[in-house]
Amino acid sequence: MTEPLRPYLGQIIAELEARGVREAVVAPGSRSTPLAILLHESAGIRVRMALDERTAAFFALGMAKASQRPVVVVSTSGTAAANFHPAVAEAYLSRIPLIVLTADRPRELRDVGAAQTINQVNLFGTHVKWFQDLPTPGSADLRPHAAQVASRAVHVAMSHPRGPVHLNVPLREPLLPEPGPASHPLMGGFVHSRWCVDDASLKQVRAWMGSAERPLLALGPESPWVDPAVLERFRASGWPIMVDPLAANGRQDRGLTRYDIFLRAVSDAPRPDVVVRLGAPFTSKVWNQWTGSSRLVLIDWPLGFRDPNHQSALVFEGDPAESLSALSRQLPMAPPDWRQALEQLEERAADQAQRVVSASPASFEGRLYAQLNQLWSDKPVLVASSMAVRDLDSFYDHGPLTFYANRGANGIDGLISTALGISAESGDVLALLGDLAFYHDMNGLHLAQQHQLNALVVILNNSGGGIFSFLPQADLPKETFEELFGTPHRIDFSGAATLYGADFRRVHSESEVFGAFQELRPRTGLRILEWITTPRPETTAVHRQLYAWEDRSWPRN
Amino acid sequence: MTEPLRPYLGQIIAELEARGVREAVVAPGSRSTPLAILLHESAGIRVRMALDERTAAFFALGMAKASQRPVVVVSTSGTAAANFHPAVAEAYLSRIPLIVLTADRPRELRDVGAAQTINQVNLFGTHVKWFQDLPTPGSADLRPHAAQVASRAVHVAMSHPRGPVHLNVPLREPLLPEPGPASHPLMGGFVHSRWCVDDASLKQVRAWMGSAERPLLALGPESPWVDPAVLERFRASGWPIMVDPLAANGRQDRGLTRYDIFLRAVSDAPRPDVVVRLGAPFTSKVWNQWTGSSRLVLIDWPLGFRDPNHQSALVFEGDPAESLSALSRQLPMAPPDWRQALEQLEERAADQAQRVVSASPASFEGRLYAQLNQLWSDKPVLVASSMAVRDLDSFYDHGPLTFYANRGANGIDGLISTALGISAESGDVLALLGDLAFYHDMNGLHLAQQHQLNALVVILNNSGGGIFSFLPQADLPKETFEELFGTPHRIDFSGAATLYGADFRRVHSESEVFGAFQELRPRTGLRILEWITTPRPETTAVHRQLYAWEDRSWPRN
Repeated sequence: MTEPLRPYLGQIIAELEARGVREAVVAPGSRSTPLAILLHESAGIRVRMALDERTAAFFALGMAKASQRPVVVVSTSGTAAANFHPAVAEAYLSRIPLIVLTADRPRELRDVGAAQTINQVNLFGTHVKWFQDLPTPGSADLRPHAAQVASRAVHVAMSHPRGPVHLNVPLREPLLPEPGPASHPLMGGFVHSRWCVDDASLKQVRAWMGSAERPLLALGPESPWVDPAVLERFRASGWPIMVDPLAANGRQDRGLTRYDIFLRAVSDAPRPDVVVRLGAPFTSKVWNQWTGSSRLVLIDWPLGFRDPNHQSALVFEGDPAESLSALSRQLPMAPPDWRQALEQLEERAADQAQRVVSASPASFEGRLYAQLNQLWSDKPVLVASSMAVRDLDSFYDHGPLTFYANRGANGIDGLISTALGISAESGDVLALLGDLAFYHDMNGLHLAQQHQLNALVVILNNSGGGIFSFLPQADLPKETFEELFGTPHRIDFSGAATLYGADFRRVHSESEVFGAFQELRPRTGLRILEWITTPRPETTAVHRQLYAWEDRSWPRN
Repeated sequence: MTEPLRPYLGQIIAELEARGVREAVVAPGSRSTPLAILLHESAGIRVRMALDERTAAFFALGMAKASQRPVVVVSTSGTAAANFHPAVAEAYLSRIPLIVLTADRPRELRDVGAAQTINQVNLFGTHVKWFQDLPTPGSADLRPHAAQVASRAVHVAMSHPRGPVHLNVPLREPLLPEPGPASHPLMGGFVHSRWCVDDASLKQVRAWMGSAERPLLALGPESPWVDPAVLERFRASGWPIMVDPLAANGRQDRGLTRYDIFLRAVSDAPRPDVVVRLGAPFTSKVWNQWTGSSRLVLIDWPLGFRDPNHQSALVFEGDPAESLSALSRQLPMAPPDWRQALEQLEERAADQAQRVVSASPASFEGRLYAQLNQLWSDKPVLVASSMAVRDLDSFYDHGPLTFYANRGANGIDGLISTALGISAESGDVLALLGDLAFYHDMNGLHLAQQHQLNALVVILNNSGGGIFSFLPQADLPKETFEELFGTPHRIDFSGAATLYGADFRRVHSESEVFGAFQELRPRTGLRILEWITTPRPETTAVHRQLYAWEDRSWPRN
């Protein structure tokens, strides 16, 4: 007896669409055939194929990141599904709503040596918010169940804090869905009350803050968009504001941005006594140390706890934008000299940065970030998790750009695919990657050719792992260091352009970089710009100059 | 207080070495610093770096496959570790001894939003034989524990059925091991009795086989090496022998090899009543169906159960080579017409194959396998899990070659890295891959450049997924089929050669292929040969001719 696939799986797809899914990324495979076909038939869901599952999942991650909508990603059974693991872990930690559908062999073929069969039950462990091992189609009418499980999957993925869910779909042959009528959504959906801030909660928060002589508002990576009027109220109360470039507000507002420089340069910079933080911990390690003994108010969605410094924290749960807005109306006033002190440090750091960058070698990477507003206005920018995001933090000041990064787990994997997912949603994207990150996800470049996406990918090539030169490992004997950490290579990246029919330029100095941007920015499709940057030890030396202030105490007038 | 790293981690490395580890593959990272440094210091373990963790783990898999020794693979924390998942699942299912060491943040930094921190506890689920979450170094003397856990890891990985083990190593900063004396192994090791076949067991097996009118010996993929004298005893008792090309014995012996052709061509071929099988289920699907109603004697290591056909099986546990040898002395005699019948079918199938291949287009892939002994004698060959292994089964007859494949989970991922792992152990390797498998693991090619390895990688390029043309999906409307399953692409693979400084040839016909082999085989380093093969639908048509016998019944004389 053949078991009908269409009513059951069609119901799942209809329900995903009804709950807001518009995009699916599908890796080719046999066991997943009916999922691919029924998604392809669906009028409201666009299917994009991806030939490498690791790439497919990061592509979906990028799409969901840019659209803030749930994106489906489909694989066949076996190691194909295991290739999703890195992107799923990243999605979990950076709160991106992915709906992972893995086709599986039916239960009777598990753990008996069947082909392309691994254990897909809880394949991603605790890196998904919800896992269900679905029934195989049989004589029962599974449509009500299908409606429920698919609706619930989207709902769980989209409930804050957002994240991936995994439905494992065991299927028997034959795998071609039989003809039949289209499915219509059955489930009513989910309605839920909103979080309101009450006076009692606010009172507790205010009590915890105490007198707050040196309070600070901090918008970390992934913090939600905050209304500028709310920020204005903090300013009016004398609160300095620091914004990580990866916050939703980014550096479009004039907050303090040079903290990574002045906190390294000045040993006795005054410390905040109270920090109100939205979003994840800051990119800047020294910032996290500087605020480590402050009383912390952590504003986040329920169960969104993120405090790796083990600070004395009060966790204020609810809708973060609402919470912050309510709090902004009841702020303690800070004495004016607190913000002035930080502003003086900021000014000196800005001067220092300008001086050091001007005097740096023409191939110093920091030059790019300092000029980024001129090079790439008003379009999204993805920065790699290793050096690129740190250089952004140090050298980019203010501007209209929107920055993305994979800072959930800070991997150097999947970044090109993520960038192209952003491009699929938002159009032309700039990706700034080191050579190791570029190498790691070269397969992602195919997505641009396959789906006619626009991207300018900049390889900041210092032949190896630049970040290690900033770590204690740099003190190892040179040979050991280069072998295990520097990992220089002889990869000729022009080959990547040949593989995928991309424009390619290799440049050496800032002026060549700027020329290449002028030429490549107006074009469409995939453009790859390789910049042979300052050798790693020299880069470290420039950074050291940034922090080498003659007077290493903060100015007290 | 700084906690000493060297006594603890050095003990682990010393013990791994004492238990037989000779090779380690290390992906660069910060948290894994002391593991990388202490492995590098170790006199008896060779460290090879790999820049992409997915590639690193498949590289280690290939090395362990070729050497049958435990190989260590090391990653830093975060998604880096999750990239190991595909290769670890493959290693588990194909019984390859990997020692996976993942550096982790210390326990106090878990699940609090720390950078590069995912949940690495049981990261690979049931795809490892053993998992341990190690203690962080502290004031206690952990050397006895380190000795025990490392020795045990190797012992578990090497105990049959072999497989991967995972040690998660949480470490606090600072990560540079302090100076100190070298560690010496402490653990005595493991001695265990061997499996002996007793008369009572043999009697049970004999009773299950019954009269055995049409018995068959089958050596499946991954079956261990069987002494030719044992095979001779089976033959002397009238037993036909069928050997999958991926068995350790391969097709170096003259067994029946054309079963995939004649079982498709002849509807009423006589079926075996008893099948004695070593190793995994056969690559040939029709073979598995043909033997599906036979009484099966499954000879394997304890708990090595693999019977996806749910046959009536007697599982004969112990050392398979010993068991088979003992059984070979007590075989029921088969009537001579049984083997003759199969030999006649074999002969007709061989004729048919020769005829069809001769008449096929000059770009038909089968031509390569038919001539493989002339092209690549006496060196290892890795075949991809999709079309390549099936074509090998159909078109390769006998010869001295040793074949490898990743048939545990049959993924198309990691194949180039696996091949280069084999090359690191066994020297020059030939890899036969479709274009999708080549694309999937192009990053693996870097290993050849980085570690001066020799490999000839043949891309059988039919622009997409050839295997789907053999499946029911091929009946879909052409546009849907090509979009979802055929997945044609425009990748110019010459770019891969540019990336890694490889030799590259693109050819179209058999004669060009043979010419390119003559030219490239004697060279060293990485050589890539792209063969633009017959379009997918035409390939299917040639295969159909193989099975189109005029007389579709078996010859009874």
